[in-house]
Amino acid sequence: MASMKFKADQVAEMLNGTVDGNPDVYVSTLSKIEEGIEGSISFLSNDLYTPYIYDTDASLVVVNESFVPEKDIKATLIRVKDARESFAALLAYFDPNQKDIRGIHPSSVIAEGVEIDESNFVGACCVIESGAKIGKNVKLYAQVFIGENAVIGDNTIVLAGAKILYRCELGADIIIHPGVVIGGDGFGFAPNSENNYAKVPQIGNVIIEDHVEIGSNTTIDRATLGSTIIRKGVKLDNLIQIAHNVEIGENTVMAAQVGIAGSTKLGKNCMMGGQSGLIGHITLADGVMIAGQSGVGKSVEKEGEVLIGSPAIPKTDYGRTLVIAKRVPKLIEEVKLLKAEIENLKNLITENGR
Amino acid sequence: MASMKFKADQVAEMLNGTVDGNPDVYVSTLSKIEEGIEGSISFLSNDLYTPYIYDTDASLVVVNESFVPEKDIKATLIRVKDARESFAALLAYFDPNQKDIRGIHPSSVIAEGVEIDESNFVGACCVIESGAKIGKNVKLYAQVFIGENAVIGDNTIVLAGAKILYRCELGADIIIHPGVVIGGDGFGFAPNSENNYAKVPQIGNVIIEDHVEIGSNTTIDRATLGSTIIRKGVKLDNLIQIAHNVEIGENTVMAAQVGIAGSTKLGKNCMMGGQSGLIGHITLADGVMIAGQSGVGKSVEKEGEVLIGSPAIPKTDYGRTLVIAKRVPKLIEEVKLLKAEIENLKNLITENGR
Amino acid sequence: MASMKFKADQVAEMLNGTVDGNPDVYVSTLSKIEEGIEGSISFLSNDLYTPYIYDTDASLVVVNESFVPEKDIKATLIRVKDARESFAALLAYFDPNQKDIRGIHPSSVIAEGVEIDESNFVGACCVIESGAKIGKNVKLYAQVFIGENAVIGDNTIVLAGAKILYRCELGADIIIHPGVVIGGDGFGFAPNSENNYAKVPQIGNVIIEDHVEIGSNTTIDRATLGSTIIRKGVKLDNLIQIAHNVEIGENTVMAAQVGIAGSTKLGKNCMMGGQSGLIGHITLADGVMIAGQSGVGKSVEKEGEVLIGSPAIPKTDYGRTLVIAKRVPKLIEEVKLLKAEIENLKNLITENGR
Repeated sequence: MASMKFKADQVAEMLNGTVDGNPDVYVSTLSKIEEGIEGSISFLSNDLYTPYIYDTDASLVVVNESFVPEKDIKATLIRVKDARESFAALLAYFDPNQKDIRGIHPSSVIAEGVEIDESNFVGACCVIESGAKIGKNVKLYAQVFIGENAVIGDNTIVLAGAKILYRCELGADIIIHPGVVIGGDGFGFAPNSENNYAKVPQIGNVIIEDHVEIGSNTTIDRATLGSTIIRKGVKLDNLIQIAHNVEIGENTVMAAQVGIAGSTKLGKNCMMGGQSGLIGHITLADGVMIAGQSGVGKSVEKEGEVLIGSPAIPKTDYGRTLVIAKRVPKLIEEVKLLKAEIENLKNLITENGR
Repeated sequence: MASMKFKADQVAEMLNGTVDGNPDVYVSTLSKIEEGIEGSISFLSNDLYTPYIYDTDASLVVVNESFVPEKDIKATLIRVKDARESFAALLAYFDPNQKDIRGIHPSSVIAEGVEIDESNFVGACCVIESGAKIGKNVKLYAQVFIGENAVIGDNTIVLAGAKILYRCELGADIIIHPGVVIGGDGFGFAPNSENNYAKVPQIGNVIIEDHVEIGSNTTIDRATLGSTIIRKGVKLDNLIQIAHNVEIGENTVMAAQVGIAGSTKLGKNCMMGGQSGLIGHITLADGVMIAGQSGVGKSVEKEGEVLIGSPAIPKTDYGRTLVIAKRVPKLIEEVKLLKAEIENLKNLITENGR
Repeated sequence: MASMKFKADQVAEMLNGTVDGNPDVYVSTLSKIEEGIEGSISFLSNDLYTPYIYDTDASLVVVNESFVPEKDIKATLIRVKDARESFAALLAYFDPNQKDIRGIHPSSVIAEGVEIDESNFVGACCVIESGAKIGKNVKLYAQVFIGENAVIGDNTIVLAGAKILYRCELGADIIIHPGVVIGGDGFGFAPNSENNYAKVPQIGNVIIEDHVEIGSNTTIDRATLGSTIIRKGVKLDNLIQIAHNVEIGENTVMAAQVGIAGSTKLGKNCMMGGQSGLIGHITLADGVMIAGQSGVGKSVEKEGEVLIGSPAIPKTDYGRTLVIAKRVPKLIEEVKLLKAEIENLKNLITENGR
């Protein structure tokens, strides 16, 4: 951790906020509100954690402007527009990983003709093949693999052991986490006469635009022809599968273990919950949201539609389905009663008719 | 891309097809039909893409013999028996990755006594341990690991960073994609008296037969005893989990993120959709198909059975269940009406009886 | 395999069991009961495999004390308290992987100041960064990465290509399988004014306590602040995702492809089936069991509760739901009959009233 020390009013100024409470408080580290220690700054944005603010030992707590305490709070509050966003900014101040490392480790194997300039870092046991193009300020951590003719844009960071295969193209300001595989062959086979499969060569590549982040051990396959495309600002969590010829629109976000089958296209600003999946050859409009573990089997044309279930249906229909399902036990009771009433009526009629 | 140039009739001959349209057309590259460019050859086999054929700028399009256009087409058609299969063959002609690389990179660490002959390629930073047997024309790309006494058959390709652990045996003509782990320990623990777990040693191995392809970051665990077996021609997509002592029958195909629990046995020619799973200790007959995200909890004895859902049931039952579920709202209405009618009847009877 | 040879009574003594059958039998290897060969010892604990015991060629079979054969058995039985536990102990005797390897391969890159003593093994092409602390008897297999200031406790084994990132802390007697990533960044982004996302720095770490085992290609993310914590005795299978700030209680066990979202806390002795998931910011009581493919959306407060479904509900409710769903077809029939009866009654009344 950095050994910087900030006073309450300095923090308020950094975050464009106001001090509420004792202004003579110093902090030198960060803490979670439920584990707050003296001399640390914490934050509160999720209501679930509100109970902790009354007991925390954190010296400062960043809260939303609108926060109204229900009892006394020992800590000094820093009131800001968006506590979560402000705290993210603070984290960057204290980030111990923000080092300006450079240089090429001698154990790395770099093909002749590949230019690595002095702004770059190449860790131990990396392999960079011929024709690869490495931008300015790129950091390749230990055991990274960059294949033939692959392109890595400026300021991009590739973490330990990630593999970027031949002819794949990464833009600028990208973060690739450990164990990621970019450019494995798409899963393409043509059934043949002997009741088995012939491989369909996958001669396309993967294009990843600027400001994308890709989580550990995620896999993105190269296109059969053309490119699998990850647009600007996309964020992918860990262990996600992106099949060949998929295209993911700008700023779309996916939680861990999502799977997207071949040739499917997602719009901008979509969100996919953990372990959800899309079948191949469909299209999602902009802003579509898919709940965790849901499976989408056809295109979604309505912008901002929210879908749940496997197979997934619009959230409103899903809610109605649940309500209807819950009425079945009552229905069983009602039918039982109706039967009894009809028996009674029959008896009455028989008596009447007698 | 290769710089070869082919005339329409040459392509027709290569594919055993016929020319329909202008025969004086040359192509030097491949394209997707929706992104066709002049001088390229494309294909059409999926009906979803039919609309593109009328506007494509591709000079040649490979289509099924049976294709009947609904309007004029600018491109020359090559009519073949199976457009997809023919295009796969064409891709191989244009595949830029079909190089005959050989040699051993000096940074690789190869144990004494391991024989690598001049037909082989071993990329940078590979590790091959003692007792490993490497066949003819094997290609081990950068950072691959081959454990003690492992066996790699002729023509097999292991891509960057894949790990083949000790005593596992791979046949011929296999492709292992980056990040795959073959032979991690099976997940076996015996609860013991202290309410925790003792590891059950996993002393078996993994056997992979000829013509198998395994996608990026997939994991196949070694058997407790005996072998986990992947039969000839099996194709596994990315991020799949195959547990210890599983056996997968010939030419069975699995989409990404499938999970197979321990000791389960699949027949030949089965297909499993993405994110589906099988519990342990069950058996699937030949040709069984499991829909995406489905979960199978008991053995399937009927050949060719198609199952859907979690828990999975036969497709026909599943369809019936959906139809029945959809009738519940109508049922609620009907019961409401019956109630009203019974009230009416009661009133009538009371009047009558009066 | 080891070339040791044991007589029936020796095995019985080793396992604290009794000989039932011919005592003059020798074994030198292990086998599965369905593939038993002469001179081998097998075991039976799962009822599904009982039919095999009557035909097995294994010379010895370890069975539970309570086992009552229904026909003659050729093999000699060793009766023990818990056949599975006893067999696990036997496996350890025959484990070919129990070697005492030591030494540092010269191709590994170890930062200055990192102490590796003579009790350790460091395989080829490993990278150990500055400030890392390596305990006694630690084994780091080929291509392992240990980041800056990471800590590896005594007797811990890290298999080929696993990555332990900076400042993560592993206890003693841990096994980390190939391709595992410990300490990738948590998935944290703050939406900003330009409708895209700013990265929230992840400055915490991962702490893994003693006796944990983690399967191939599993990923455990570092905390935003504080630590993601895996408690003593936890067993994680392959391809599991553990998000930032998660805490997993002692001896909890997860099957493959489970996903746990951020900040969720699991109690002790929980069990999660394959492909199941927990959303973020919830708590599971001790001993909670989640069925395979289930998805839990809220905290579970009852100890030992068993949940099924997506969204998951208690097993008893789930059973009732299934029973209710199955009654709908009958309900449809009943309503049809009631309608007919009411028509009859109407006619009767009309006749009566006439």
